[in-house]
Amino acid sequence: MLAELKERVYRENIALVKNGLVVLTWGNVSAIDRKRNLVVIKPSGVDYETMTADDMTVVDLDGNVVQGGNRPSSDTPTHLYLYKTFSNIGGIVHTHSAYATTWAQSGRAIPAYGTTHADFAFGDIPVTRALTDDEINGEYELNTGKVIAETFSELDYAAVPAVLVKNHGPFVWGDSPEKAVQNAVTLEEVAKMAALTESIGGKDNRVGRTLLKKHYDRKHGASAYYGQPRK
Amino acid sequence: MLAELKERVYRENIALVKNGLVVLTWGNVSAIDRKRNLVVIKPSGVDYETMTADDMTVVDLDGNVVQGGNRPSSDTPTHLYLYKTFSNIGGIVHTHSAYATTWAQSGRAIPAYGTTHADFAFGDIPVTRALTDDEINGEYELNTGKVIAETFSELDYAAVPAVLVKNHGPFVWGDSPEKAVQNAVTLEEVAKMAALTESIGGKDNRVGRTLLKKHYDRKHGASAYYGQPRK
Amino acid sequence: MLAELKERVYRENIALVKNGLVVLTWGNVSAIDRKRNLVVIKPSGVDYETMTADDMTVVDLDGNVVQGGNRPSSDTPTHLYLYKTFSNIGGIVHTHSAYATTWAQSGRAIPAYGTTHADFAFGDIPVTRALTDDEINGEYELNTGKVIAETFSELDYAAVPAVLVKNHGPFVWGDSPEKAVQNAVTLEEVAKMAALTESIGGKDNRVGRTLLKKHYDRKHGASAYYGQPRK
Amino acid sequence: MLAELKERVYRENIALVKNGLVVLTWGNVSAIDRKRNLVVIKPSGVDYETMTADDMTVVDLDGNVVQGGNRPSSDTPTHLYLYKTFSNIGGIVHTHSAYATTWAQSGRAIPAYGTTHADFAFGDIPVTRALTDDEINGEYELNTGKVIAETFSELDYAAVPAVLVKNHGPFVWGDSPEKAVQNAVTLEEVAKMAALTESIGGKDNRVGRTLLKKHYDRKHGASAYYGQPRK
Repeated sequence: MLAELKERVYRENIALVKNGLVVLTWGNVSAIDRKRNLVVIKPSGVDYETMTADDMTVVDLDGNVVQGGNRPSSDTPTHLYLYKTFSNIGGIVHTHSAYATTWAQSGRAIPAYGTTHADFAFGDIPVTRALTDDEINGEYELNTGKVIAETFSELDYAAVPAVLVKNHGPFVWGDSPEKAVQNAVTLEEVAKMAALTESIGGKDNRVGRTLLKKHYDRKHGASAYYGQPRK
Repeated sequence: MLAELKERVYRENIALVKNGLVVLTWGNVSAIDRKRNLVVIKPSGVDYETMTADDMTVVDLDGNVVQGGNRPSSDTPTHLYLYKTFSNIGGIVHTHSAYATTWAQSGRAIPAYGTTHADFAFGDIPVTRALTDDEINGEYELNTGKVIAETFSELDYAAVPAVLVKNHGPFVWGDSPEKAVQNAVTLEEVAKMAALTESIGGKDNRVGRTLLKKHYDRKHGASAYYGQPRK
Repeated sequence: MLAELKERVYRENIALVKNGLVVLTWGNVSAIDRKRNLVVIKPSGVDYETMTADDMTVVDLDGNVVQGGNRPSSDTPTHLYLYKTFSNIGGIVHTHSAYATTWAQSGRAIPAYGTTHADFAFGDIPVTRALTDDEINGEYELNTGKVIAETFSELDYAAVPAVLVKNHGPFVWGDSPEKAVQNAVTLEEVAKMAALTESIGGKDNRVGRTLLKKHYDRKHGASAYYGQPRK
Repeated sequence: MLAELKERVYRENIALVKNGLVVLTWGNVSAIDRKRNLVVIKPSGVDYETMTADDMTVVDLDGNVVQGGNRPSSDTPTHLYLYKTFSNIGGIVHTHSAYATTWAQSGRAIPAYGTTHADFAFGDIPVTRALTDDEINGEYELNTGKVIAETFSELDYAAVPAVLVKNHGPFVWGDSPEKAVQNAVTLEEVAKMAALTESIGGKDNRVGRTLLKKHYDRKHGASAYYGQPRK
């Protein structure tokens, strides 16, 4: 069942390690099969070195394990809520990557300081409000999904494919698990460069609206001309 | 004698290198056999590249070398004092890893800024007071153990598995040498993210008590649900 | 056609990756054959892992693809304008390397703080003015070339082989693609050390004019004595 | 001639690369044969990847090339002056390693903030005064040696085995080329941790005199007890 998707999700979890985004067993990648409404996700707390594609867990949108002998990531309810709310995404990544987490810990959105940011997201990367004590003590992981959705109530999740959960870390998405991991890699680099930019006094030098739009459209707009034409 | 434990201690010393926590010959890992009251520890100043499991030194709790041709780590009296005082720990790690040492050199505890910290320790990582001149000129390494124990007189060493010795560096522990090394890796990452968090103005954005407890309990509490069930 | 130059351009694009200057598919290297007025450049958005020398695209100075099945880098008009304006350069590199981009995002020139800088460039690395909205909405990549040339209207491009495009990133050149990549590696290291120098209070400690000239001339002057004599 | 010493000098030059202390062809290691008064040094501007032990150049204390087809490092007169002035050293390293160079560019000595520093040097790592214009325009490399010696007129070069040349970078030494490289690795780590210590407010928390002496003596004093006994 879903052998190919399990292989892809496995490969992208390993890609997190290769790209330096995870330490120990932190982080997870999932993907959804929109036809069957099934989600493939990394098992909880399993060692990346011994993990195989067969260890990936398959759950339905209610969180029931449909296949796989392992408990799914403890963050599964967050992933599921996002798949239900952001109806066009195909993959989700959660990490504690150092610089993105630093912004989340500071409770600050990542300002768009340059074209590297604009190539990836059309505007600042938002940070959620803090969860209330009731939200934390209740269905915590589900409520994390809800506070992310709330953050995007007036934002386009397709144009800004990442969020920082306050005092926690980033969730990132894309139309596929591969694209979600690419976005997670870019987010970390953008987060790093934004921190460094402020360290040398660049806080008032944000990228202008026209340049932001130019670079975003060059890659993602209707007449995008970056990369090779789709075959 | 203790061949398996020597192998494990050797492997975890090498793991320190692989995880980028040591430079040259700095750092050491030990483990205790609680039934025999014997401690296995890295020899002093030996090159990681040529070291073998057989080079590990076995000492009793009074510091007498019971097996092995090498002088044990010069920090051995600190390790032994901690094994005697923290009666449930199974492994200890000492490093000069860059960010943890930075906090020790600043004389500051590492504030809990996020869930990465909370997943690992239930509160700030404390820093010891400075040793007095008499403590330094006397049994220095033993007194280092004593000042660590003093720092934990009103703290639970099981819930906060690390300390910073002022102007020196971290000591970290766990119920096994493997867990102690995992904790040392996490400490360094948490120390790094805390420094970066302050660099972008996050000093007043510490993780709230409820979220701290939620994440700590999710991994370590009576009804922990992170990871796979113990077999 | 231009098989050897394509091989060299391919190799130097890979060298960007090996030297840690690019993330994902960002960055590009080109070279010019001055006799035939043809430019070899990396294709747009192609994966470094699967790319081969044959994938390099050949364009004439008007931007027409003369050989190769791939769309050239979207930055090609910038490269071509620079080859036409800086008549002695043989290779150009564009990256989003972290520290150089940080200075571009801050809108600041990189100050010459030491001999490492002086060995490479005779003075600060300038930053362009921001492009106007019309320049961005018009022929953006061509106008990027023009604003770089404008920045060098009173500067010697041979003595200062790099520029920061404001809110974007660095363009770097040299008399060959190999030298351009060496300069890009040096620029990133110099940009890093300049940021760190300011972080510990060195902002008023710029290298003096005499030492700047001494080191620049030692490597690049008429009686240079660094390195081995040319055979 | 001096085949074994050339092999060792070659190996330690490569060790600089492996330890991340050099970029491109920057940096050099030399060693002296005190019986013959001959110095083996890296050739100038040669690529580390193709360099062999045979490429090492042998010079006498007046700088005459005694063996080897390559021009010696342009920094050779600095090395020779130090060998003549610091009569017990056996090896010298010069690098532009990022953090040590940062302190040199800031014109500041590296303060001793902790035991990692004390294990290596008995006090701050000094920075030279700036060279005068005449010193720069005259015999620059020789004068660099002289200003280093001047900096140590009231300091013990055996207890503080490194210096920062203002706006330039570090020179480091030891009783052998192997020890000099170890000291260069330690200097870079200590320089990094000192910068980070200041970034989180540790500037007033320098290591006390008693702890500094304890750690220095533990490794280097008459009754040192770190490491294994000499065989």
